[in-house]
Amino acid sequence: MTDTPEPAIRRAAEADLPAIVAMLADDPLGATRESPEDLTPYLAAFKRLAEDPNQHLVVAVRAERVVGTLQLTIVPGLSRKGSTRSIIEGVRVHADERGSGLGTRFVEWAIEKSRAESCEIVQLTSDATRTDAHRFYERLGFAASHVGFKLQL
Amino acid sequence: MTDTPEPAIRRAAEADLPAIVAMLADDPLGATRESPEDLTPYLAAFKRLAEDPNQHLVVAVRAERVVGTLQLTIVPGLSRKGSTRSIIEGVRVHADERGSGLGTRFVEWAIEKSRAESCEIVQLTSDATRTDAHRFYERLGFAASHVGFKLQL
Repeated sequence: MTDTPEPAIRRAAEADLPAIVAMLADDPLGATRESPEDLTPYLAAFKRLAEDPNQHLVVAVRAERVVGTLQLTIVPGLSRKGSTRSIIEGVRVHADERGSGLGTRFVEWAIEKSRAESCEIVQLTSDATRTDAHRFYERLGFAASHVGFKLQL
Repeated sequence: MTDTPEPAIRRAAEADLPAIVAMLADDPLGATRESPEDLTPYLAAFKRLAEDPNQHLVVAVRAERVVGTLQLTIVPGLSRKGSTRSIIEGVRVHADERGSGLGTRFVEWAIEKSRAESCEIVQLTSDATRTDAHRFYERLGFAASHVGFKLQL
């Protein structure tokens, strides 16, 4: 693809929401739990994220088209001598871009942003069924050292 | 223990820091990565937590003595129809209180607080070596559905 530039990663804007939600829904797990036909709940969440200085919701854009999204949360804390950590959530790459290296660039962006925010750990959880994702994160240097527990309320 | 009341759970104050840090250090994993003799880095982190409305750092107090600590982080997000989730971190119960049911009360407090903050998921990660903790969280209704990845910066 010599005629299209590499995707640029930038802060998400409200106008990106339809494209972001479409990517959240175009996923084996997301298909059953998203509602791309009604953006109202997403808009409320977007506004809350936009106002929070510890939240970094970004998109990857190629040729003016949103092709990926990622949420990075900065979490201060007392443990490990008052270490700040970051949490990666909601990584999605458009179906057309899979295999393009965008996933790697996204995670590398998150790592660089975490360093810039003085984080000492980057963490994330991945559904136990996403074994391809596990190999991907291990290649990027992450250790599968923890068990992730969830409770639906 | 009919002569001591049940521990009360309240927001942590700066004066609780020495007791909190002592509990963080009195732990098989924490022993090697905390510095209770120098509270400076913890004080900076405490101030950052205290100013963040999405952070709830609490302590359990029995007979005016701090006997437990827990950090609950509220994380808005777009996925799952704009669900807000909460993350439990840094749960510690004083050695004298283990087996007293305080761990259960703490997690129940976190779940109730998460409901009050309109969260739809409560999540946490636990080091893969803490098998007793895993059984504890499963008894409380959590599902070990995810793999937790960490990258030290």
